Amino acid sequence: MESTAASKPKSEYLVPRISQFKIALCQLLVTTDKDTNLNCARNMLEEAADKGAKLLILPEMWVCPYSHEYYAKCAEELDKEESSQAFSMLSKVASSRKITIVGGSIPVRKNCKIYNTCCVFGPDGKLRAKHSKLHLFDYYEPGASFKESDSFTAGDTPTIVDTDVGRIGIGICHDIRFPELAMLYRAKGADLIIYPGAFNMSTGKMLWELETKARAIDNQVFVAVCSPCRDSAGSYTIWGHSMIVGPSGETKGRAEHEENIVIAEIDYAENQLQRELFPMLNQHKEDLYKLLDTE
Amino acid sequence: MESTAASKPKSEYLVPRISQFKIALCQLLVTTDKDTNLNCARNMLEEAADKGAKLLILPEMWVCPYSHEYYAKCAEELDKEESSQAFSMLSKVASSRKITIVGGSIPVRKNCKIYNTCCVFGPDGKLRAKHSKLHLFDYYEPGASFKESDSFTAGDTPTIVDTDVGRIGIGICHDIRFPELAMLYRAKGADLIIYPGAFNMSTGKMLWELETKARAIDNQVFVAVCSPCRDSAGSYTIWGHSMIVGPSGETKGRAEHEENIVIAEIDYAENQLQRELFPMLNQHKEDLYKLLDTE
Repeated sequence: MESTAASKPKSEYLVPRISQFKIALCQLLVTTDKDTNLNCARNMLEEAADKGAKLLILPEMWVCPYSHEYYAKCAEELDKEESSQAFSMLSKVASSRKITIVGGSIPVRKNCKIYNTCCVFGPDGKLRAKHSKLHLFDYYEPGASFKESDSFTAGDTPTIVDTDVGRIGIGICHDIRFPELAMLYRAKGADLIIYPGAFNMSTGKMLWELETKARAIDNQVFVAVCSPCRDSAGSYTIWGHSMIVGPSGETKGRAEHEENIVIAEIDYAENQLQRELFPMLNQHKEDLYKLLDTE
Repeated sequence: MESTAASKPKSEYLVPRISQFKIALCQLLVTTDKDTNLNCARNMLEEAADKGAKLLILPEMWVCPYSHEYYAKCAEELDKEESSQAFSMLSKVASSRKITIVGGSIPVRKNCKIYNTCCVFGPDGKLRAKHSKLHLFDYYEPGASFKESDSFTAGDTPTIVDTDVGRIGIGICHDIRFPELAMLYRAKGADLIIYPGAFNMSTGKMLWELETKARAIDNQVFVAVCSPCRDSAGSYTIWGHSMIVGPSGETKGRAEHEENIVIAEIDYAENQLQRELFPMLNQHKEDLYKLLDTE
């Protein structure tokens, strides 16, 4: 499963670039019923669009609980219309409201494997990119291990996509723990990095805000993370706290743990300002270290 | 000015390795008088040693205020005994108390250039490594710019040193803003990364704790930062808040902004435990990205 968006130069893209706009993070409540989740997501997206948001984000794994037993049943095959209800819904909402949607993630089946995949739609309703989680969350504690790699196959390609609301790098949840991915996106000119995620109560409290802010300040970009709310179904208890952070580490908007839509203003001029104040890129020491894009 | 410690394999070092010990961060008050600062530092080091600390840290620029006009006057030439009072004092305290000292930083003159340099002494009083700040803090705000590169020449070598209290990577202040340096140290087997620093009130509030914790959790190592206290002399107002953080991001000890010695327990087994729970290194995707040591 590969990303459809490569790091093409911006000039190849015809869509106009908007640098100031409203972003919405839809921290929805995930139930065990896929239709209910589809309706809930559609309603939140439409409400956010009504409030003027131009870029709408859903959480990781919003069509079913974040639990192994649901993935196969709820997985979509994106080349078969009858089994891609979430995919179709997102495309329709994007085109009817003329918005960009970073569609959180859903289980996607391809060649008998299941991926944890984020689909990005433009305001014309067309798929602009898809990203499959690169780093699966495997945690080894005697009696309390959790192996996402038992359920999913990992993606193999970073995803950076040009949209009419900027150049966006995509990661999913545990992908945020790897600074190199964000650094690659920064090197390719990302304005914003988005991580749909679902941290648990332990990693959530310790790491969720910290990693979000670290990726933002170290790369001088906006970073958004979007989670299901805590009351979502399943045995895995979710931290929530979807948030958007500016390039200086400033919190622009944040949910608590309840169902909520967070709407915040993005202005990419802030990225440029930070880079002028603190010219970190010019201070890199390529004679000492260098991050290689080995893809 | 080069580091004296290369990344030799541990087996070349004869000193016994202690993995559980007390660390002390000496957040001292810096005055305009070098002799006063030397006395204060010696007193704090001896007090910390009396309390059982085996690894003692001083802040960035503790022999004089963090202001351009003092550097030339207080700079030491390390190959001339008569002009290296701080260097000599640290060596003597280390040997008399059988402790390891990471001596914060002082201005060091070599070949008519001045460096912002950290000297590391072993319990025999011998210099084990010296690190000159690699990334100088240059900040460009109209009317409020601050250019450390007007005062100092940058170092050119990362510094990782084997001591009897573990393998330690050294950075100074702004060096912490570059994740690559910490990643290099992690790759070379650092147990602990130490950054003497002096963040100001603005970057301190926004970045000091965040960057300290990010370097710790992303590399699954202990990280210590040690600052002068806020009431130190000079026009530059210092954040303070020296702290030591474990590999899960847990704060082990922290000062507020006043003069203080922070003493905390380090147990490197925590590094190993974190790496077993979250095997991040095994999850790196070298087919997508790779940090090169280009030195």
